[in-house]
Amino acid sequence: MPRVTAPSDIARDHAAKRLAALATPPGALGRLGDLGVWVCATQGKVPPAPVDNVRLVIFAGDHGVAAHDVSAFPPAITGAMVRTFLAGRAGVSALANAHGIAVRVLDFGVDEDFDDLDDETRATLTAHKVRRGSGAIHLEDALTAQETTAALAAGARVAREEIAAGAQLLLSGDMGIGNTTPAAALVAAALGVPASEVVGRGTGVDDERLQHKTQVIDTALARAGARTGDPIETLTALGSADLAGATGYLLAAAQEGVPVLLDGLMSVACAITADRIEPGAAAWYAAGHRSTEPAQSLALDKMGLEPLLDLGLRLGEGSGAVAAVPVVRSAAALLRDVALLSDLMP
Amino acid sequence: MPRVTAPSDIARDHAAKRLAALATPPGALGRLGDLGVWVCATQGKVPPAPVDNVRLVIFAGDHGVAAHDVSAFPPAITGAMVRTFLAGRAGVSALANAHGIAVRVLDFGVDEDFDDLDDETRATLTAHKVRRGSGAIHLEDALTAQETTAALAAGARVAREEIAAGAQLLLSGDMGIGNTTPAAALVAAALGVPASEVVGRGTGVDDERLQHKTQVIDTALARAGARTGDPIETLTALGSADLAGATGYLLAAAQEGVPVLLDGLMSVACAITADRIEPGAAAWYAAGHRSTEPAQSLALDKMGLEPLLDLGLRLGEGSGAVAAVPVVRSAAALLRDVALLSDLMP
Repeated sequence: MPRVTAPSDIARDHAAKRLAALATPPGALGRLGDLGVWVCATQGKVPPAPVDNVRLVIFAGDHGVAAHDVSAFPPAITGAMVRTFLAGRAGVSALANAHGIAVRVLDFGVDEDFDDLDDETRATLTAHKVRRGSGAIHLEDALTAQETTAALAAGARVAREEIAAGAQLLLSGDMGIGNTTPAAALVAAALGVPASEVVGRGTGVDDERLQHKTQVIDTALARAGARTGDPIETLTALGSADLAGATGYLLAAAQEGVPVLLDGLMSVACAITADRIEPGAAAWYAAGHRSTEPAQSLALDKMGLEPLLDLGLRLGEGSGAVAAVPVVRSAAALLRDVALLSDLMP
Repeated sequence: MPRVTAPSDIARDHAAKRLAALATPPGALGRLGDLGVWVCATQGKVPPAPVDNVRLVIFAGDHGVAAHDVSAFPPAITGAMVRTFLAGRAGVSALANAHGIAVRVLDFGVDEDFDDLDDETRATLTAHKVRRGSGAIHLEDALTAQETTAALAAGARVAREEIAAGAQLLLSGDMGIGNTTPAAALVAAALGVPASEVVGRGTGVDDERLQHKTQVIDTALARAGARTGDPIETLTALGSADLAGATGYLLAAAQEGVPVLLDGLMSVACAITADRIEPGAAAWYAAGHRSTEPAQSLALDKMGLEPLLDLGLRLGEGSGAVAAVPVVRSAAALLRDVALLSDLMP
């Protein structure tokens, strides 16, 4: 597997000097200044190129735990939402269209065959499919070891396709009823903390279900045991086809040196798993939006990332990352287009 | 003077029903849902039109207090920055260009004549000029009563010109060394609080200057006395030509029923003054970015507004409002383009 090379220190230093030389008061650009420097480091280029070509991939899959009362919604919603993405009518579709972001939805593990779709659409959607559904992690492994390897490789392939299509910034989104349960388990495994610290309400479970969800995650962690010490075995035991796919995608982005704007819990759980597989991957990631799920904040803290937005979105789908793309564009524009003090006062 | 009519209750109710009927989990759009409903209410239209035509006016002016050690920068910077806006090379220029926002800079009270500019540029820049500089508010009134009236009227004229040019959302920006001192005084007058509660570091004064700035504001408030009970007399005593101009602009936007995205302290100080002149004007305003100036947060709280962004920007110029425009566009897109649950499951 290719190793992760760090973003360019030379470009970062050069960008920091440019930031300090802009015709603005010291520190006046706040986080946009720091973010602009990061963009330069990831591009290896000062001033940075505009971040025009931004591409979101939504990893869809079902989760065995969804049949065990951990979600406010029935599993059939996963496939219904995949069709809504294909029709361009979901929340993230509206946001991506408003901001000129390409969206691709892929079935990595949805528990249906999409036989109602036309052949071409269905072939494209399911080209990387690993299996129908993933195991109920409190009872069984989510995947076989072979399936985990296949999902990681497929996700990496997808990232390379998006990069070949010109991606300057990649985003990952998710769709899958019940997915906050395995994602929280991945974070708990990465941080070595119990379920009670990572569990959240997802799209809206009540107190009783929240307690049950906590038990499901603790049971899953206990079942995985020492395997949680290895990030790939963690995906096999506690993840899912879609989460392993997204992990492979985020890892390949870092390996290829393309920056990523992370979304909510699923995206961040996969990012921290990618950073466990290849330490240093997280240097290629920025955080788009603060999730209400506690596991997201814990994992971001561990990676030293602070979200750009906190607008109370809890839609999933990649929507928080998409909403934050204009902030990255603002940062790049400032580092690129603002006059230098030396230009104004020669 | 025309009265302010409230945004449409009918459109707000209709939009709230549409939000609840979208194919998204209840509450999942967070603040973007509420903001989208507000956009609908201001447009009187459900679903809302895209917020494409966004226009920023930067009100430039000098302040007598700048000669009295309240700022980290010399007054000559005001004119230099006006030239940087005209050249499209300032921070806000870069942001506005990145997000397709029109920028117009107007000299309402800069303490120079811009004789070096070509005739047409100079004529356009100074068409609404009220005077050269404004009074040092701890020693004298900022303006005469006639100048205040003229500045308010000129600002209103500018708003109507921008609306005639198709503005769907207006922003106000500022440029003027020393302007956080009169702006904080306007907020202190509006809220009836002492200088110590409103004073901040502007573009970066040290502890000693901060204490001096507090004394300047308290002296100014004492000098204005009971006149702070009237918002227009407050502008005369404690404001400036540029702040009175921006107040007239924000007031006219509300009167004409065009929504405004507020920026930092100067914009918000003028907004709360406009709302004092015509109670209800603030219903037409949303807040773009949290300022580090305490007066901005106090005034926003009083108007019931919560900023969309908190990125540590302290550049002024309207930059915080410009950076937040994509959030308003996201909100409008969600209310407009997301499928209704009834469309998906007929």
